[in-house]
Amino acid sequence: MSLEIVAQNRCFDGVQYIYRHASRETGTNMRFAAFVPPQAATQKVPVFWFLSGLTCTEENFTVKAGAQRVAAELGLILIAPDTSPRGEFVPGDPDGSYDFGLGAGFYVDATQAPYAANYRMRSYIETELPALVGENLPADMARQSISGHSMGGHGAITIALRNPGRFRAVSAFAPIASPINCPWGQKALGRYIGADQPAWRTYDSCALIEDGRRLPALLVDQGLADNFLASQLKPELLEAACAAAGIKLTLRRQAGYDHSYYFIASFIEDHLRYHAAALA
Amino acid sequence: MSLEIVAQNRCFDGVQYIYRHASRETGTNMRFAAFVPPQAATQKVPVFWFLSGLTCTEENFTVKAGAQRVAAELGLILIAPDTSPRGEFVPGDPDGSYDFGLGAGFYVDATQAPYAANYRMRSYIETELPALVGENLPADMARQSISGHSMGGHGAITIALRNPGRFRAVSAFAPIASPINCPWGQKALGRYIGADQPAWRTYDSCALIEDGRRLPALLVDQGLADNFLASQLKPELLEAACAAAGIKLTLRRQAGYDHSYYFIASFIEDHLRYHAAALA
Repeated sequence: MSLEIVAQNRCFDGVQYIYRHASRETGTNMRFAAFVPPQAATQKVPVFWFLSGLTCTEENFTVKAGAQRVAAELGLILIAPDTSPRGEFVPGDPDGSYDFGLGAGFYVDATQAPYAANYRMRSYIETELPALVGENLPADMARQSISGHSMGGHGAITIALRNPGRFRAVSAFAPIASPINCPWGQKALGRYIGADQPAWRTYDSCALIEDGRRLPALLVDQGLADNFLASQLKPELLEAACAAAGIKLTLRRQAGYDHSYYFIASFIEDHLRYHAAALA
Repeated sequence: MSLEIVAQNRCFDGVQYIYRHASRETGTNMRFAAFVPPQAATQKVPVFWFLSGLTCTEENFTVKAGAQRVAAELGLILIAPDTSPRGEFVPGDPDGSYDFGLGAGFYVDATQAPYAANYRMRSYIETELPALVGENLPADMARQSISGHSMGGHGAITIALRNPGRFRAVSAFAPIASPINCPWGQKALGRYIGADQPAWRTYDSCALIEDGRRLPALLVDQGLADNFLASQLKPELLEAACAAAGIKLTLRRQAGYDHSYYFIASFIEDHLRYHAAALA
């Protein structure tokens, strides 16, 4: 499968690319952002995945987080995928709401009509896109790590739990800790996967941990002025699951910070250095 | 005049504000962005002005440049104004083009109908907004500096040349060096100011220098892969004017960089440190 370059900008002596490609999984054209650091001119370098949240495309993290500066120093490829399939023929939320459908793929493989044909973001992120990255970029696929924000934090943690050994470090910003237990997650899983509650556990960080999946460690930043903290994010559920399972969770509650990319920008350097240490 | 807070986000232990206020100069509501660093909790701090380019609002620099991290370290307030008046009743470009009217105020006081009533960005930036900032923010107005990008680089340099002693440091990213001598500038000045070419010199960095205005020093970064370099920006004209006048211009030609905010993000730290040294 070939990649088409949509945009290419020099940035901190590396290159910020936006790629487009036909996706087998989603049946659509998909875009993703890839920052290639200057070190990649002479060697393959590790890959840091960042999964974004509701409403986001590949651009939000790329434009707003300020991650390229640190990635250029540390020698990391940054991959920021889109969050859902797109296209006029792709079914969105019947009510036009932001928390389901376009921009809200939830990193699941949908099984329910009319979503099953296109909403295959789990397989896209777990299988199709890593193969494309490995084939087309100067990426050392033996050294990968993953992070994400909100819905993308949920995605990062669940993907890491289901693929043991693939990621040398895992972190999240304000992740949806347990989709089973919040309105965003219940809406998404109910429509994409159907009312089959046991199947939901495959897409729930806390349930995966309860069911025996493990990570060596996990870094999470959560803003205490986040509007979604109590109703949707519920880091205390992740804290309890990790404690019960003996997973070393570093949960930093950041006073005054909200759910925005200003929060992510403020702490992305910490995360990138945490990841780079594990990827070295 | 009072400021209304439109948005407020914690960022690098400071606060990123978006303010709105009724403007005497433009006859509209205007927005501007202000980052207030943590040092301002206990003392007044210096002010760094950043004027944006064509099509931009107060958000572009604020969201894309990654300047808050360095400003929080150095203790600088960052002010990013909008680039033109806005509103349904504000006349834009009759052809709907991006390079005139809404988003393209060019930092001039228009004298021609139908623009003269609202397009008063020179007086807004030189007089009205500094007064508001001084009254409402923990700003040490004796310590100001100014920078900008493209049309905003033109704005920064011309404002500094016309207000000697106000700014302790001046810099620009890919400035329009001489509006008199490029299509963007000729269109804007012709429509805002009319065919009166002598009056244009008040809004042209090179002409102001030729006419005796001076700066102590000037830092300019210019990408060599910038699509507008030869046709619109023409840094060689600024270089010649500074050389003839004995102005110490540091013009850095950056190989591979284009006109985007990825270019600004890559070098904003250099500029902020340059400004902070002069503001200390």
